[in-house]
Amino acid sequence: MQWRTLIQKSDAEAVRALVADTGFFSDEELLVAVELVDETLARGKASGYEFLFLDQPDRPGSLLGYTCYGLIPATESSFDLYWIAVSPHCQGQGLGAKLMRESERLARASGATQMYADTSASEQYTPTRAFYERMGYEKAAVLKNFFAAGDHKVIYARQLGAGQLG
Amino acid sequence: MQWRTLIQKSDAEAVRALVADTGFFSDEELLVAVELVDETLARGKASGYEFLFLDQPDRPGSLLGYTCYGLIPATESSFDLYWIAVSPHCQGQGLGAKLMRESERLARASGATQMYADTSASEQYTPTRAFYERMGYEKAAVLKNFFAAGDHKVIYARQLGAGQLG
Repeated sequence: MQWRTLIQKSDAEAVRALVADTGFFSDEELLVAVELVDETLARGKASGYEFLFLDQPDRPGSLLGYTCYGLIPATESSFDLYWIAVSPHCQGQGLGAKLMRESERLARASGATQMYADTSASEQYTPTRAFYERMGYEKAAVLKNFFAAGDHKVIYARQLGAGQLG
Repeated sequence: MQWRTLIQKSDAEAVRALVADTGFFSDEELLVAVELVDETLARGKASGYEFLFLDQPDRPGSLLGYTCYGLIPATESSFDLYWIAVSPHCQGQGLGAKLMRESERLARASGATQMYADTSASEQYTPTRAFYERMGYEKAAVLKNFFAAGDHKVIYARQLGAGQLG
């Protein structure tokens, strides 16, 4: 598995293409995903975002998957997994799980003691919630009608203590 | 009561002075407070932040108090009260309550159906939590050890339905 943490210019387009390819995210979400890449390209570490990329070995400038995570401002060691996406062409191969565990390992190396992941309680996100739960995340909170009437926010959390990774 | 919602250049320094005067916030928080003003001065409505100012009648460019709130990105009508501060020279006169209610009224006019307010479960924030509870806010979630070991985040929420304001 060829991980890359150093961001490069082509990642803005690569992330846009990957996130669009999943067919899962709204146009607004797509813009946000690219914005985080752009901000990190412009400001580096000061952006507060860290990335983990999995390049397509045969297609330079294309991604099999990626995560974006980082220290939550005003917290000592709480990290947020802002994005995780895997190409639809290679889902079901455990890449998401590998990306997640490697991101947690890197976050822990950066001082993280826990990782948060926000998602929706709606039908569309049932596979997302199942994924987080398989990965050992626990429901820390449910905010009723957060996104819209009937669309609740679910906040997952996982402790990244010693012995809990791997 | 002289409310002002239109932001002006002098508010960056006025907010810095007010927030510093309270003696309640860290240097990092102070920087964030001013950053929100700067971003709104630069980008206008596109910043996503709305302000309510209460000017000192006798001292132009100085504030008795202010709030900063706005639509939470990716939500339909959930607002966040990012900041509320009242000058230490006029605390205990109900200005905080008036600022809060007027901000909720304005938010509702902008389409808000609920207002969130995040704070800490720590000792220092006991008066803050008591204030939110007096104002009708309910604990929607507690995120354990969010800010640091032993320092939990409390998320308060209040429905802004018809008949619940005033």
